Amino acid sequence: MAVANWKIDNIVHGLQQARHDWRESQHRPKEFGGRELPSKEALKAIVDDLCGILFPMRLGPADLRQEGEDVYIAFTLDKVLSALYEQVRLTLAYEARYRISATIRDSNHQPDAAMIQQQASSMVQTFANALPDIRRLLDSDVQAAYEGDPAARSVDEVLLCYPGMLAITYHRLAHVLYQNNVPLLARMIAELAHSATGIDIHPGAQIGKSFFIDHGTGVVIGETCIIGARVRIYQAVTLGAKRFEVDDAGNLQKDYARHPVVEDDVVIYAGATILGRVTIGKGSVIGGNVWLTHDIPPHSQIMQSMPKPKISV
Amino acid sequence: MAVANWKIDNIVHGLQQARHDWRESQHRPKEFGGRELPSKEALKAIVDDLCGILFPMRLGPADLRQEGEDVYIAFTLDKVLSALYEQVRLTLAYEARYRISATIRDSNHQPDAAMIQQQASSMVQTFANALPDIRRLLDSDVQAAYEGDPAARSVDEVLLCYPGMLAITYHRLAHVLYQNNVPLLARMIAELAHSATGIDIHPGAQIGKSFFIDHGTGVVIGETCIIGARVRIYQAVTLGAKRFEVDDAGNLQKDYARHPVVEDDVVIYAGATILGRVTIGKGSVIGGNVWLTHDIPPHSQIMQSMPKPKISV
Amino acid sequence: MAVANWKIDNIVHGLQQARHDWRESQHRPKEFGGRELPSKEALKAIVDDLCGILFPMRLGPADLRQEGEDVYIAFTLDKVLSALYEQVRLTLAYEARYRISATIRDSNHQPDAAMIQQQASSMVQTFANALPDIRRLLDSDVQAAYEGDPAARSVDEVLLCYPGMLAITYHRLAHVLYQNNVPLLARMIAELAHSATGIDIHPGAQIGKSFFIDHGTGVVIGETCIIGARVRIYQAVTLGAKRFEVDDAGNLQKDYARHPVVEDDVVIYAGATILGRVTIGKGSVIGGNVWLTHDIPPHSQIMQSMPKPKISV
Amino acid sequence: MAVANWKIDNIVHGLQQARHDWRESQHRPKEFGGRELPSKEALKAIVDDLCGILFPMRLGPADLRQEGEDVYIAFTLDKVLSALYEQVRLTLAYEARYRISATIRDSNHQPDAAMIQQQASSMVQTFANALPDIRRLLDSDVQAAYEGDPAARSVDEVLLCYPGMLAITYHRLAHVLYQNNVPLLARMIAELAHSATGIDIHPGAQIGKSFFIDHGTGVVIGETCIIGARVRIYQAVTLGAKRFEVDDAGNLQKDYARHPVVEDDVVIYAGATILGRVTIGKGSVIGGNVWLTHDIPPHSQIMQSMPKPKISV
Amino acid sequence: MAVANWKIDNIVHGLQQARHDWRESQHRPKEFGGRELPSKEALKAIVDDLCGILFPMRLGPADLRQEGEDVYIAFTLDKVLSALYEQVRLTLAYEARYRISATIRDSNHQPDAAMIQQQASSMVQTFANALPDIRRLLDSDVQAAYEGDPAARSVDEVLLCYPGMLAITYHRLAHVLYQNNVPLLARMIAELAHSATGIDIHPGAQIGKSFFIDHGTGVVIGETCIIGARVRIYQAVTLGAKRFEVDDAGNLQKDYARHPVVEDDVVIYAGATILGRVTIGKGSVIGGNVWLTHDIPPHSQIMQSMPKPKISV
Amino acid sequence: MAVANWKIDNIVHGLQQARHDWRESQHRPKEFGGRELPSKEALKAIVDDLCGILFPMRLGPADLRQEGEDVYIAFTLDKVLSALYEQVRLTLAYEARYRISATIRDSNHQPDAAMIQQQASSMVQTFANALPDIRRLLDSDVQAAYEGDPAARSVDEVLLCYPGMLAITYHRLAHVLYQNNVPLLARMIAELAHSATGIDIHPGAQIGKSFFIDHGTGVVIGETCIIGARVRIYQAVTLGAKRFEVDDAGNLQKDYARHPVVEDDVVIYAGATILGRVTIGKGSVIGGNVWLTHDIPPHSQIMQSMPKPKISV
Repeated sequence: MAVANWKIDNIVHGLQQARHDWRESQHRPKEFGGRELPSKEALKAIVDDLCGILFPMRLGPADLRQEGEDVYIAFTLDKVLSALYEQVRLTLAYEARYRISATIRDSNHQPDAAMIQQQASSMVQTFANALPDIRRLLDSDVQAAYEGDPAARSVDEVLLCYPGMLAITYHRLAHVLYQNNVPLLARMIAELAHSATGIDIHPGAQIGKSFFIDHGTGVVIGETCIIGARVRIYQAVTLGAKRFEVDDAGNLQKDYARHPVVEDDVVIYAGATILGRVTIGKGSVIGGNVWLTHDIPPHSQIMQSMPKPKISV
Repeated sequence: MAVANWKIDNIVHGLQQARHDWRESQHRPKEFGGRELPSKEALKAIVDDLCGILFPMRLGPADLRQEGEDVYIAFTLDKVLSALYEQVRLTLAYEARYRISATIRDSNHQPDAAMIQQQASSMVQTFANALPDIRRLLDSDVQAAYEGDPAARSVDEVLLCYPGMLAITYHRLAHVLYQNNVPLLARMIAELAHSATGIDIHPGAQIGKSFFIDHGTGVVIGETCIIGARVRIYQAVTLGAKRFEVDDAGNLQKDYARHPVVEDDVVIYAGATILGRVTIGKGSVIGGNVWLTHDIPPHSQIMQSMPKPKISV
Repeated sequence: MAVANWKIDNIVHGLQQARHDWRESQHRPKEFGGRELPSKEALKAIVDDLCGILFPMRLGPADLRQEGEDVYIAFTLDKVLSALYEQVRLTLAYEARYRISATIRDSNHQPDAAMIQQQASSMVQTFANALPDIRRLLDSDVQAAYEGDPAARSVDEVLLCYPGMLAITYHRLAHVLYQNNVPLLARMIAELAHSATGIDIHPGAQIGKSFFIDHGTGVVIGETCIIGARVRIYQAVTLGAKRFEVDDAGNLQKDYARHPVVEDDVVIYAGATILGRVTIGKGSVIGGNVWLTHDIPPHSQIMQSMPKPKISV
Repeated sequence: MAVANWKIDNIVHGLQQARHDWRESQHRPKEFGGRELPSKEALKAIVDDLCGILFPMRLGPADLRQEGEDVYIAFTLDKVLSALYEQVRLTLAYEARYRISATIRDSNHQPDAAMIQQQASSMVQTFANALPDIRRLLDSDVQAAYEGDPAARSVDEVLLCYPGMLAITYHRLAHVLYQNNVPLLARMIAELAHSATGIDIHPGAQIGKSFFIDHGTGVVIGETCIIGARVRIYQAVTLGAKRFEVDDAGNLQKDYARHPVVEDDVVIYAGATILGRVTIGKGSVIGGNVWLTHDIPPHSQIMQSMPKPKISV
Repeated sequence: MAVANWKIDNIVHGLQQARHDWRESQHRPKEFGGRELPSKEALKAIVDDLCGILFPMRLGPADLRQEGEDVYIAFTLDKVLSALYEQVRLTLAYEARYRISATIRDSNHQPDAAMIQQQASSMVQTFANALPDIRRLLDSDVQAAYEGDPAARSVDEVLLCYPGMLAITYHRLAHVLYQNNVPLLARMIAELAHSATGIDIHPGAQIGKSFFIDHGTGVVIGETCIIGARVRIYQAVTLGAKRFEVDDAGNLQKDYARHPVVEDDVVIYAGATILGRVTIGKGSVIGGNVWLTHDIPPHSQIMQSMPKPKISV
Repeated sequence: MAVANWKIDNIVHGLQQARHDWRESQHRPKEFGGRELPSKEALKAIVDDLCGILFPMRLGPADLRQEGEDVYIAFTLDKVLSALYEQVRLTLAYEARYRISATIRDSNHQPDAAMIQQQASSMVQTFANALPDIRRLLDSDVQAAYEGDPAARSVDEVLLCYPGMLAITYHRLAHVLYQNNVPLLARMIAELAHSATGIDIHPGAQIGKSFFIDHGTGVVIGETCIIGARVRIYQAVTLGAKRFEVDDAGNLQKDYARHPVVEDDVVIYAGATILGRVTIGKGSVIGGNVWLTHDIPPHSQIMQSMPKPKISV
């Protein structure tokens, strides 16, 4: 089969030039050695193992027997924490190399490998210690879904196939990493959930216990959201920022509270949009498609007063 | 590399305690042996094989030749039905163990393995017998997509890459399982389609022939929906429940008709929301973003009369 | 374990009959040899390799070192272009077989294998030549995302985990295939991105540099859209067709401009719906949930004037 | 590509007839359900895991750390013993079905599944209990190889790459299974070693500590051999049976002592052949290519007195 | 980690020069397109499938049930014969390219692709037709091993783990390919068996029914051997050529009968060496280590009269 | 299924105790971190890649085209040399840790990681530089096999399926590593060849060009052998040591010349045994089964004068 030679040299050269121009524009130092970046595939495997650790008889290996739970967890923890340590270390080393956010550098302003390792180790320990509490929170979420959906027949059905359950599981893991200063890893985990479920929860969001998202496609929950206990949310709900503030130089401002506070026992129906640092008072019910940019007192019932659709037969 | 020891014993103990508390709260009997639960990965493989059986020259193995279709189908059917039988059996055994919905128990109120096997076998046979009719329904769906989308260049393009086609294929398989009293398996298959396409069709929904969903992201179709023939739906359409009814004790009521009836030849444009047991009459067209909670007579044209947006330059 | 025999012969026969009826209805010639169709899995592998070629130190193999970039690219290009050639050849052969769109046939009206190979070869060369420019466009998209999202901490974070970045990368590759007359392959690549991100960009859409989609779930961009430079779009935005035009015989008309033109520097917030061949003037801002079916002059600010929601406490 | 149709029906029919004739000739009962036979692949995986359990820091997973040895062993033991149990159960069930050797049958002369399970369980427990002693024996073998080969630079080199070490490791595991009445499994393990090393040790052979085989290709050690401590053997040595005895009916007799006894501290050089139930006395040295069919007193030096080869220049 | 740059250009250049010199020395035409050579891995997969086809309930897939045998065989045959066809075609095309042995070329002395395909197709059909007879021969071999080895406990043990059984199975398949003029494929299959068992049977050897090799390591059976029915052979037996004949120009002569003829019911014990075109008469027994280069009459008993070994204590 | 609990704690404890005793007996320092040992699997992959680099169009990837050879080699070299570097580094670090042979330690007698890396890097560079010469040597070996075996039909058949060719290829690679002071790696590669072919060549052996081993099972070539050009060897030939010398303390002496010197153009037939530092003069022919322990002048013909076997009919 006469396949062309593709003139590969030209294309290689063109790509080389494009990379060169980009690196110039970014003032990137020349890299030596490997690329030293966290890996999506590695994180996926880590999160899968963590799910098995949290729910061994439901999400662990198919041939696990209950009397072997603890041994399985100990062995898998040892493996997964070392794998996570490596991803944290890669992230910190990457950030030190490019001086991103809080970086670790020695007295010559060079990345300090020993300090990076020590800090990675400490971060992973903190993460590991949080796992039992995460399990308890997730138990409350399972129960909330079971009680909140008339179609749910058992708690195990929730764990095995509800996308909202997957999203909150990934989020509770990612949120601990976010709190421990590896936001890049946290974000990568959040995007794994986003891709699988269509639910986009920023790992910075604080979410109370017994949280339930039904259907979920199109849900967006922003970085500085604070969500209370027993909150229920349906598909296509946005808890977003009203607008982005810029400083005098016109640069986007970061790290200020710009997303809603949702108090305990609130229900938000499909398609509702709540923008800005507003507070939805305890026990309120927000109807479908409601558009909200101001505070709501506790126990309110909000209904979008849509104009009647026009009907012609 | 000085990697910490992670104090694994503490974490294992903390997780053990959390599991213990959960199982107490659920009054779970102690489990012996393996976990005996259906598996998402096994179901994914089963559905992939079923797609190959239904459309051997399009979704079967790449090296299949047309003269080998029947042998391929016979061999794969034998394999896939045994695999499905095992998943059905696991599901029935699981339900008997936890006394979920209709359970099979012997005179000592214990799960009856022989009856479970017999019932699983009978359910799988019924499922298998439905496959030729499913193929015919799916052929009508392919044709509907081809005729309904100006961008479609061939019926094969529809089969190979339309997400709506994937969603309805999975649904028609899942719906037969739902009708045969393995709703957990049906739901797991529906969620595989949901994750891949963003289209969330509850396996209980009854859907007529020549059904077409375009784009599809964010579509939600509820458990008790009844959809006629030649219906077309666009992205972000919700056919949902208006509210959940509770009994006198405050518990959610289940198993009553709470989702729309959509009659033949209806078109529903993107973002429309139709809630409750309302009927959309034959041949009606529901415009984009329409919000509907009441019956619509046949051949209606419904348009959301949106207020003019405010423009400032 | 007494597993039933499944009466496979009946089912095989039923499926055979269904296939026969379908092929009759489609006037399909009997196929000999293999199925000769492009493969989703093959395309996925091709696009993965292309991502590595475009961004070797970010999306290439984990153990790549910067001094080996060019050799890696040359080797992978050679491999991936041959693989792509095979997919293009399969597509052209398929189209010739079924007389779809522009087909290649010899003087006896039979598919002409040599011409198909030659044309496939030429199409792949054109595609390959476009790669350096695609890289430059994607660099502008990365920069746009970094500057447009207060949560983005580095350009690498954008490349590694933003779904909008994945969608535009796949689109820019697919668009070149669309322009080179293999729309089926282009569409299959677009659907890979759609499934992973919930963002549905038709490969025909023309999109300028520095394009940024945030969150992205539910975005739909139609086939004849023209989008300028530095445009920013949020989740659930639709740039769609108003209605489908039919000819006198009632057949859908194809290939006419039916989607919006969005000029440079436009921002479109979440949930906005813009339908038909309308023009959104340069520098305009379209607010959330706006519903638009007419032209907008440059530098407009459009806000949906929603009726106040009703509140009851 | 015009590939023939292969007239498969004829071949299928021919094979069917051949199988039928064979089964008739063997008086085989018709089988229902699956084939219920132990699997070579499963045994290979089991032996690999057992090697890791015996030498975790040398043959266990590459990323194991010494502080995690016990947890790794506990987890892997739990997994591997269950896998071995299944292979033992399949073997016993197979033997009961075909009435091979000691079979387990109920009062109706049918295989008794419960008894088979109980016996399998007990056999595996006995096997598991033997593992620490096997490790101690293998340590003595490693030390013997290190001391016996001038080319060996470390004990770890012996463990990692000496074929004789692999053969004796597999043998010591297989021998325990042989003693516990699952000779078929034992034989399958022995053949795995035979294929990898060219060393053929029947699992029935009794071999003392500090055993060393150098090079090893072509070594054959028969079923009833008894080998003392600190024995050293080179390639192509045969410890075989002189002839097979038949009973009056002309059938081969089984289960009588027909292979050599090799006492402590014997060395047997390459190519020596020792046949029959003879005893090689303690501390003897058997030269290369020696042919022996009678007893040898302790501390003998045996040299083959070869006729001078003829030389012509 | 400071890894060197390896000066790859120099090495690539050095290798290029070495390849160039070799190709010059071989008068090789420049190759275009792919390498077009049969593949060891592909053949391994083909032989594995053929083993399953021949013994479906013993060497087929673990989950096969007896009632599905024929469907499994038909499906697998269709797949494996097409795969074999491709290997045969590659071999014929390779031989035509390099003018090896009988080559297929058109009137311009170029390889003729159509003729090659036709011939490959015909060869595969002949091979396929031979499968039922091969099964019957192998059944006789299984029975011979069971009856000839006092350690064999069942016919299935022979099939599952005797290396001699694997070797004769591969040989009987390879021999049919050898007879059908694809000796390269035949040789590759023979070497797969050689590597797994240490038994080296040239695919040209003609071997009668009820053949049994015990232990087997080091057995060599030459290309022109003729072996009768019910022959038994032990390890390290050589049936070889005495010397290679050269023509007047000093080139090795090929294709003449140069290996032994072994008549029915002969037994040859371990280490015996029989060289040249000699005949071992029916029913003879050749003792261990015997060295034979002349004919032996029927029913002889041959024993090597070894000089007594010297013993010193 | 009632599977026992296996009393795993006891077994884990027993194994722990056995490991403890062994480590005590070996005066092993406690290990921290991972096991840091070279890996058989990694070496297998490295050697496979090196074979592809040496013979790209014969042993490289199936889809390689000749015009892409150099790019393939450059890319694969870059990858494989880094992988080899890691194995060399692990080996040196391991040897430094246990003070085996020449170890690299800093002024505190601790392993010096930087020096180890530097030395590993230098060793790999030397190895890489040797590849073109290895290719030329292997070309001479291919030619020798083709000319020396009447059954060989093409040089490619030799490369694709002769076990002797595999053995000499692995040996020539291993020998360079042996010369560069990583004998453990060299030995592991030699054992990979030994396991696949039954040919056991110590990596220390020096072997001239145009070397050919036919059949090969059971060949043993010792560490200090020196073999000239154009030597041909058949199966079961041993070139071994006569006896092992011990020093006054009774320890085995190492590193002295103890194996044969085989001069140019010698042929050694099957089963010959040559022991000790003897010289086989140029052009000699050693007959089958000859036993030799003294020098042989050039151009000798050595034939074993076997006593006639006894024949009884």
